[in-house]
Amino acid sequence: MTHHRVSRLDAAPRLAVVGATGAVGREMLTCLAKRNFPLSHLRLFASQRCAGGALPFKGRSMRIEELTAECFTDTDIALFSASAAVARRYAPLAVESGAVVIDNSSAFRLDPEVPLVVPEINAGELVRHRGLIANPNCAAIISIVPLWPLHRVNRIRRLVIATYQAASGAGAAAMQELLDATRAHLDGREHKPQVLPHPYAFNLFSHNTTIDPETGYNGEETKVMLESRKILGDPDLRITATCVRVPVLRAHAASLNVEFDRPITPAEVRSLLAGAPGVRVLDDPARNHFPMPSEAQGQGDILVGRIRQDVSDHSHRSIAMFVAGDQLLKGAALNAVQIAERLLTA
Amino acid sequence: MTHHRVSRLDAAPRLAVVGATGAVGREMLTCLAKRNFPLSHLRLFASQRCAGGALPFKGRSMRIEELTAECFTDTDIALFSASAAVARRYAPLAVESGAVVIDNSSAFRLDPEVPLVVPEINAGELVRHRGLIANPNCAAIISIVPLWPLHRVNRIRRLVIATYQAASGAGAAAMQELLDATRAHLDGREHKPQVLPHPYAFNLFSHNTTIDPETGYNGEETKVMLESRKILGDPDLRITATCVRVPVLRAHAASLNVEFDRPITPAEVRSLLAGAPGVRVLDDPARNHFPMPSEAQGQGDILVGRIRQDVSDHSHRSIAMFVAGDQLLKGAALNAVQIAERLLTA
Repeated sequence: MTHHRVSRLDAAPRLAVVGATGAVGREMLTCLAKRNFPLSHLRLFASQRCAGGALPFKGRSMRIEELTAECFTDTDIALFSASAAVARRYAPLAVESGAVVIDNSSAFRLDPEVPLVVPEINAGELVRHRGLIANPNCAAIISIVPLWPLHRVNRIRRLVIATYQAASGAGAAAMQELLDATRAHLDGREHKPQVLPHPYAFNLFSHNTTIDPETGYNGEETKVMLESRKILGDPDLRITATCVRVPVLRAHAASLNVEFDRPITPAEVRSLLAGAPGVRVLDDPARNHFPMPSEAQGQGDILVGRIRQDVSDHSHRSIAMFVAGDQLLKGAALNAVQIAERLLTA
Repeated sequence: MTHHRVSRLDAAPRLAVVGATGAVGREMLTCLAKRNFPLSHLRLFASQRCAGGALPFKGRSMRIEELTAECFTDTDIALFSASAAVARRYAPLAVESGAVVIDNSSAFRLDPEVPLVVPEINAGELVRHRGLIANPNCAAIISIVPLWPLHRVNRIRRLVIATYQAASGAGAAAMQELLDATRAHLDGREHKPQVLPHPYAFNLFSHNTTIDPETGYNGEETKVMLESRKILGDPDLRITATCVRVPVLRAHAASLNVEFDRPITPAEVRSLLAGAPGVRVLDDPARNHFPMPSEAQGQGDILVGRIRQDVSDHSHRSIAMFVAGDQLLKGAALNAVQIAERLLTA
């Protein structure tokens, strides 16, 4: 089994970042540097278009190489942050070459043979990987990290999610489009959307993924629902999501309405979340200070607040809360790097 | 009973607009003009600070007078768009002077003697007014106008709302703050929030109303919950709301999760909403075209879409949907003018 390569590593692994020039790829480099990931060698790969350029890493300038079928020799861990199509083509080649792939695309997330991992929740799944580990959808991660400490002691019966998702989930070009469209709006100029399907300046719209004609849910909502079930290890979890793109740059937020098996109080929720890994309770009614993207941005933790008893459930089993987390960090790059860290200590 | 004055009117009433210079006051003038409201006389009132200026109405320049205790003689209908404090002080004086007051503040909305009216839903309530009629909270109006045609044939058991609310709900100054803060952000300048409590550029935050320390709900959420019950005539309606301010200028949106008494399908919902007054179904999965603020803005109708069966309710009694409506129009000014129109034809 190829994954033994990494599991047996005493020294520092040789790392590759695929899609290094994208919004998530760049954050992967930042996370690796900031957390002093013990790598012995680092290679950056991108499409032919971006190859030849360079990116900074720990004060050095790193050359960007073209992604090819042969580029994974001498790689122990490959962090993939590319499209699902690129992942489907190149991840198996990397695994064949002996690397462990941590893939940020949706390509393998629902494959029963592939662990889908949020380290705070199900790091134990890592032992069964066969060279491929999937990094979950950003909105799923941000919603369920603060739910896990509750779910493990009082099972979630039903979860209703409404998201407020940032531009970054659609990549660096979407972030630029939000900035450009907004400046044009302020200057009274026309701006034609090119990356996202609708005008983005001072506007919001249903998430720009394809709607499933059978269910009416869009691709993002389906990911949130199916991936949350898999990560929480509860295939029957009743969950519904409405995913909305808002004019925010890089932190997602979500309104969570959670029905538990047994009665629960806001005080219990706060006590279960206090000190939970990856979570910071920010719940200050007196100052009207709660999770918001401007403060979640740049933070590894998911902020959680507005914790209150849902008055519409007379059985006292429901809690409302509001969460925010950096889409590029815990929603993507940081979670991938944390998975890589767990591989080293496994 | 003072209201007979208006009910008996054959000719055109004499109108007063209180708070004419505010964001909602200006829209009231636009609505009156656009709809050719049959008024015989119009007076505009504002605080001392704004009095002396002028506002355009149907091509004429209308002088703005200072609001005083004596200014309502010769007024048949007074549209109030001021603070709750101003309404509490001046609305009773206007009623004593013989006017019917349609008040947009929260001052009288929950008073059992005061009808709280959305004409499409409960215009019948108008017959019992005693000179005072309350115009509901904007987020409540926008959420329940598309729910009424469903509720009347299949009672709502439980309603979970998450809002995406525009700056305009906090007034013209908040809209300007959003523009100023955003321009400063784009130019790399600092901007200190003055109207709203948090940075607004490319950010969102929990609604800026006071949190009830008993329930944990904020003032806006409490309004949405209590007013929806009163307007729908269902004091036991189980409802919960999470109200969030998003960086959008003047149209609110909301994600609605609705559980009905009996099973219901998206096709039934669409058929019940087709042709319903005040509602426009905008639900085009093939083009990913759904309600959004940029298209709700300037429209009198509430847009409704993303109508789908909630997969988390195995009893098939729950529907998810997404709505958007102009906060200044149907959420405030237009609804008030529509109430005034009903008084004339009552």
